[in-house]
Amino acid sequence: MRTVAIVGLGQIGGSLAAALTRRRLARVVGVTRRAETARRARRMGLLAAAGTDVAAVEEADVVVLATPVRTLLRQIPEIAPRVRPGALLTDVGSTKAEILEAFRTARPRAAVVAGHPMAGNEKAGLDGVDAGLFERRPWTLIAGPGATPAARRTVEALVRGVGSRPVWMSSAREHDRRVAAISHVPYLISYALMGVDDRALRVCGNSFRDATRVAMSDPDMVLDFLLTNGRAVAEATASFGRRLAGLLSAIGRRDAGTLRRAFAAARARRSGI
Amino acid sequence: MRTVAIVGLGQIGGSLAAALTRRRLARVVGVTRRAETARRARRMGLLAAAGTDVAAVEEADVVVLATPVRTLLRQIPEIAPRVRPGALLTDVGSTKAEILEAFRTARPRAAVVAGHPMAGNEKAGLDGVDAGLFERRPWTLIAGPGATPAARRTVEALVRGVGSRPVWMSSAREHDRRVAAISHVPYLISYALMGVDDRALRVCGNSFRDATRVAMSDPDMVLDFLLTNGRAVAEATASFGRRLAGLLSAIGRRDAGTLRRAFAAARARRSGI
Repeated sequence: MRTVAIVGLGQIGGSLAAALTRRRLARVVGVTRRAETARRARRMGLLAAAGTDVAAVEEADVVVLATPVRTLLRQIPEIAPRVRPGALLTDVGSTKAEILEAFRTARPRAAVVAGHPMAGNEKAGLDGVDAGLFERRPWTLIAGPGATPAARRTVEALVRGVGSRPVWMSSAREHDRRVAAISHVPYLISYALMGVDDRALRVCGNSFRDATRVAMSDPDMVLDFLLTNGRAVAEATASFGRRLAGLLSAIGRRDAGTLRRAFAAARARRSGI
Repeated sequence: MRTVAIVGLGQIGGSLAAALTRRRLARVVGVTRRAETARRARRMGLLAAAGTDVAAVEEADVVVLATPVRTLLRQIPEIAPRVRPGALLTDVGSTKAEILEAFRTARPRAAVVAGHPMAGNEKAGLDGVDAGLFERRPWTLIAGPGATPAARRTVEALVRGVGSRPVWMSSAREHDRRVAAISHVPYLISYALMGVDDRALRVCGNSFRDATRVAMSDPDMVLDFLLTNGRAVAEATASFGRRLAGLLSAIGRRDAGTLRRAFAAARARRSGI
């Protein structure tokens, strides 16, 4: 892991660059669409070099694709064949079914392990960079084409190196189902909550603030993961809706015992996260 | 507002005592059910005096009832008649219809203004005390029996004194509807979210953490406001469910334009809070 090339310097790509550079784990080179972003990342001291030429991936030992999902789907056919044999090619996309399909189709010579750090917040771009962003967060991994044991060890070293906890999943479908339930549904909920009327919003407290924080995210990033995970999001939302209806029904029949048990169980489970 | 008696020293009552004492706005006396809580509040320097005898309310200029809603409903008939004429009697209960009805039935001699600070978090009791808890938060007020202009000014002085923003509402029903939408629904959502399976919970990120923070609240406090506001909670949840279904339908037909506009509008509105 001497040279790590990161394509895309948004909050995730930029924070990964910062974490690797700060901990002296690798020489980091960045590739961005806009020259100004590359210049700014260099000025911020996030990496050794940055520019707009994707040829930088050819010399890297590890290539991390860190653009939004639908950009990734366009970039994979172009970039994957340019990564050298023996190198590791990974990504940080929020959904995995279409991405793994794109990796397979691109016939890469490098070993592919798809990845998804469960980190980040509503801040976008280099303004949201934080070298500690990945600490104690799960980082989902799925073996892709050519994923040798050595490639798996390399990606685990990268993930652990920046403080994350690797969580291997058996398939893109498993990943997309889990992430729909644990992440995409909370995003969808936050947008639905934001539809409250102005007179209610005037008396907004902490429960609403917390539940709607992610509504401040970049709309295009959210659109990317919702539109590439529609079926799993629909299933997870239906499941959430059934649980919500169950609670509402207990309130309707004033079943304090059932509700107290449910609330106490949720409290214990949430406190254990 | 020379002497303020606070009945109940949980997070809200204790923090109000701390805020008034710290800012030297009044001499605060506390009344608690358990002698140990009163001793601890005194040791913490939150107030001038504290004990378990409710007679303390008789000498106060302002009496604040700060117990959970269903305890309040039991206490009002006992305490309200003991507050002297010319004093202000208020409360901090999370729902207002049953409380205002109890105030009317109790035939108080003092002026009653019902209140509800939109403050507090998942920490319970004196462990959650924070003298800055009310700063920049809305504090809902509803005129009750005998609420003279002088009484309204007194309660506004109390609310502004601890850094809050008074928001007058015309009726308990209006309050309960607004608060169901802005506060009780997010609580219910957090419990429904906590029903995700263990394998999804393993890859939990910030969106889920934020949306479920209130699931760590005291179950009995939540039970109190849900069971005294069942109808409004059901209506607000149905309204939320319709907005959620609308978003899901746009995802299903891959309507990126509608979703992007909805997300951008939500982002702007949330950023303005």
